[in-house]
Amino acid sequence: LLSGDYDLVVIGAGILGASSAYHLKKNNPSKKILLLDRNPAAGQGNTARSNAMFRDTFSSKDNQILAKSSISYYSTLENIGLVKTGYLWLLSDDQSKKSEAILNSMQKNGIRISRFSKIELSAIPQLVISPQGEEADLINAPQIHEGCFGHDCGRLEPDRLTNHYVEKFSNLGGNVAYNAEVKKLVIGSKKDLGLGGEPFVWQEAEAKSITVLHGGSLGTINSKAFVIACGAWTNELLEPIGIDGHVKAKKRQLFKLRAEKGSKISSLLSVSPIHSGNLPFLILPKSACFVKAIPQNAEFWIGCDAEWGEPFINMPSKDIDLEYRASSEYYSLNIRPILNQYLPDLSSVVPSQMWAGLYSYNTVDYIPFAFQEGNVIAVGGDSGSGIMKGDSLGRIVASLYSGQDESELYGGTYYKTSKIGFTKRQVEREEWVL
Amino acid sequence: LLSGDYDLVVIGAGILGASSAYHLKKNNPSKKILLLDRNPAAGQGNTARSNAMFRDTFSSKDNQILAKSSISYYSTLENIGLVKTGYLWLLSDDQSKKSEAILNSMQKNGIRISRFSKIELSAIPQLVISPQGEEADLINAPQIHEGCFGHDCGRLEPDRLTNHYVEKFSNLGGNVAYNAEVKKLVIGSKKDLGLGGEPFVWQEAEAKSITVLHGGSLGTINSKAFVIACGAWTNELLEPIGIDGHVKAKKRQLFKLRAEKGSKISSLLSVSPIHSGNLPFLILPKSACFVKAIPQNAEFWIGCDAEWGEPFINMPSKDIDLEYRASSEYYSLNIRPILNQYLPDLSSVVPSQMWAGLYSYNTVDYIPFAFQEGNVIAVGGDSGSGIMKGDSLGRIVASLYSGQDESELYGGTYYKTSKIGFTKRQVEREEWVL
Repeated sequence: LLSGDYDLVVIGAGILGASSAYHLKKNNPSKKILLLDRNPAAGQGNTARSNAMFRDTFSSKDNQILAKSSISYYSTLENIGLVKTGYLWLLSDDQSKKSEAILNSMQKNGIRISRFSKIELSAIPQLVISPQGEEADLINAPQIHEGCFGHDCGRLEPDRLTNHYVEKFSNLGGNVAYNAEVKKLVIGSKKDLGLGGEPFVWQEAEAKSITVLHGGSLGTINSKAFVIACGAWTNELLEPIGIDGHVKAKKRQLFKLRAEKGSKISSLLSVSPIHSGNLPFLILPKSACFVKAIPQNAEFWIGCDAEWGEPFINMPSKDIDLEYRASSEYYSLNIRPILNQYLPDLSSVVPSQMWAGLYSYNTVDYIPFAFQEGNVIAVGGDSGSGIMKGDSLGRIVASLYSGQDESELYGGTYYKTSKIGFTKRQVEREEWVL
Repeated sequence: LLSGDYDLVVIGAGILGASSAYHLKKNNPSKKILLLDRNPAAGQGNTARSNAMFRDTFSSKDNQILAKSSISYYSTLENIGLVKTGYLWLLSDDQSKKSEAILNSMQKNGIRISRFSKIELSAIPQLVISPQGEEADLINAPQIHEGCFGHDCGRLEPDRLTNHYVEKFSNLGGNVAYNAEVKKLVIGSKKDLGLGGEPFVWQEAEAKSITVLHGGSLGTINSKAFVIACGAWTNELLEPIGIDGHVKAKKRQLFKLRAEKGSKISSLLSVSPIHSGNLPFLILPKSACFVKAIPQNAEFWIGCDAEWGEPFINMPSKDIDLEYRASSEYYSLNIRPILNQYLPDLSSVVPSQMWAGLYSYNTVDYIPFAFQEGNVIAVGGDSGSGIMKGDSLGRIVASLYSGQDESELYGGTYYKTSKIGFTKRQVEREEWVL
């Protein structure tokens, strides 16, 4: 049975909750803070199900600031499996034209980008620059016109990064509880009259406690303030108390291809064209189909970005098991035909493993949010880029809690906290969407 | 059984759908357009459940333009029961201070407002200017400091207004179907390959048809384009095809008090202080509790605006019957104590009738939206003010359909259509919220 009284409860030990909890505790060492999660460990929800890539290549100044600062911090950490493989966008003629001004602007803002010609790209073995034939026509697969390489991009281990924050939080005296499922955020009146049914409309309301299922029993945890970092489940906790959680979930599927020793695709794992040491994270010029190479595991992860037509999900979903299940038919019909045009050797391998996770989109402008209403702070809407902005968002949450107008991010950049809320929202929408 | 092929299908014959259908047909007389609704007549959903008041007193320039133009048009119509009773906000000292700059700005923008002192307000019989006593302290009921009167505000009959548009739409040759419940918006590929399971991610998707339940049978209606004007149910149709409907529903309750002939409150019905002819729509300085007098029916409608703490509802609700039910306990505990402070004679009457409706909020900025994604246009998020902005929003929908950058509103004002979408949203958030 979980119970007790806290100054602050952080719900959700994914990357955003863990980072928030640490920065809150660091800034408020004497406060009694609890971080809880329904999973048996930190970072085991959608953080673990994600592609776990990071990049600083955004057109939006807000995305640039949030990602750049977080990546700089992560780069100082050992043991989070960070590898700067780089991202290599293989752009079609159309995409290249559309990107020209944006790429120039990124470079001006200090984002390290290199551009490669078709001829330079031919150093990547097995890559087809000019798809041809019936299937290429059918799926309308464009030729590759150029390559755009982001240097400060790569992959990391999301559970290790999350645990980094949880450990630092614990070391400062923060409390952590796992297998603790928050069923409800309970509100009441600031001046409780003991009448039952409070708050009435003529009273000032505030969040009072949470009802938590733990070890088969329901307990109550009282707190003076709450941070909601529940990703796709944000609405589920906030809507019943009249706060819009502003997230829409979307299922994203990942497929693992094993590169057997001596196989043709195995040789692709260890090539290092363009960037020394690693095959970059490749993004094909169709449906954002991507290839992530993980040499030490002898595997590739494959996925794509669904366009118009794939459902948004109002959480809780009617069938969450289904949302977490990937489908080999989805792979065969949607992804394989694309892969087959550009990397036919890869496309001949059948996925050995597959899974799905929920991206929680902020569909207003696809930039994350952090806002405070009364004694509740919500952070999320990272739209698939929570890991790469996690450190910055945790700092902003801590600043909101302290009532600071500006948040000092890692590296010394200041970010206005109200910009990323909704009441005074002022963010640049992301324009570099391929 | 409903079936057929159309150029355009407008789903939802509430005020926004009816106005849109008419303006679309007027601009495109040769197009085959169908307006359908699940109710047995137009304007019988949440349009009919609303308070059906209108006002032009907003701080947001966007709200001002949308409302002012619509009200000007409505004022030319006979038979929609339009009565300019005026709105009279009874402001506390705090509210008055908060409103000062906003009211001045409204007046500069040509919105007709008059301000009244406490002494002038005492012309309203039965009104208590300075609540006192235990209950007043308990609910923290402020004294009335001044009155702010909006001249071009009032009430109308929402079903008559909706029918006005439907009739004009029919007269132009538009088709209307009632008792027609759209179960699904069906998408496919622009270039249909007949493979089944389309659209795949490498295809361009578009909405193809709707599945409609009518007379116990499911039918299919094909159309080249669709307008979604379903209020609280917008998400339900759009989310499955990957478009965020951007609405959150909230239950709002209305309570009717009968003014028996010769009763004390009956005399309040016919007084005309401040404004000749009618008791204005009164807004008390606590929880936006309001009193709407309808002399010809010898009744008052009472309600309030819930603050933080009342749930948002992701539609479809688990229990829609419950959402449409008002509760006398809600009245007794929440509204009556407020009414009792300022209009004690009214508060002694027990409601003879009560009902609830769903407001569909756009929680981003509380300004309505109209946007196009592919061949789907969505209009809504009016946050309780769909009727008063209905004509303007219908014109904007018609302009979006025609690909016009600007929409000519009634009275000749031009409004940039992209401003009210999400991709390039640029609206002034409403600041005058009391």
